[in-house]
Amino acid sequence: MNTGILVLGHGSSLPHNRELIEKIAEMIADHGNVVVRTAYLNMEKPTLEEGLANFDGTGVDKIVALPIFLAHGVHTLEDIPRELNLDNDLKGSTKVDGKTVDIVYAAPFGADPVIADLAYQRAEEALAR
Amino acid sequence: MNTGILVLGHGSSLPHNRELIEKIAEMIADHGNVVVRTAYLNMEKPTLEEGLANFDGTGVDKIVALPIFLAHGVHTLEDIPRELNLDNDLKGSTKVDGKTVDIVYAAPFGADPVIADLAYQRAEEALAR
Repeated sequence: MNTGILVLGHGSSLPHNRELIEKIAEMIADHGNVVVRTAYLNMEKPTLEEGLANFDGTGVDKIVALPIFLAHGVHTLEDIPRELNLDNDLKGSTKVDGKTVDIVYAAPFGADPVIADLAYQRAEEALAR
Repeated sequence: MNTGILVLGHGSSLPHNRELIEKIAEMIADHGNVVVRTAYLNMEKPTLEEGLANFDGTGVDKIVALPIFLAHGVHTLEDIPRELNLDNDLKGSTKVDGKTVDIVYAAPFGADPVIADLAYQRAEEALAR
């Protein structure tokens, strides 16, 4: 299997969200065995449609749409599914090199303990400054 | 030292951001030795001003403002510092029980490897569904 991961960012008028998304995409690519592309909902390129098109030539036969969001909200539950034409089960498909490939939609991070631990670490760092 | 942590969420018209913030606040409180309160930038209560006021009676002598955001952006660099009256060094102060206490401002998560690992895990979970 040749899996693609479309790393989805919020987008921003400032550079920090793009830097975050590009670094996360690099670190995911370092896991190996996946083809990684990025896309943004707002204010940045590539758009989601353009991001999907960037899998052309990669031979992927499945794409995971991976929202880099902390929690579900209007962006993850309405905007992204609409732009990716996902069905009610949050599944969809697209054409890569003329072939139909499935899109599966990953969950946002949620209140995972590693998120809480990282938040606590950021608080400790602020106190140490 | 008796430290307060003000856990700052984006706020949302949907319940998921609030659930995230409240669970993260609980997990941070479980670390012990800190007084934890929550506040929201948009669409939710308490506001940041109300969140600070909720330290009254706790005896905290320092407050960490901890933004639960993935990256810096307009919210973390403009909106939150303005609402907390932080100076150019992102430090400030507030009154708790009539006493002046310092506010220090923590950084957002950034492209930490634990974030990239969690994103990769979410992609794997989506593929397994």
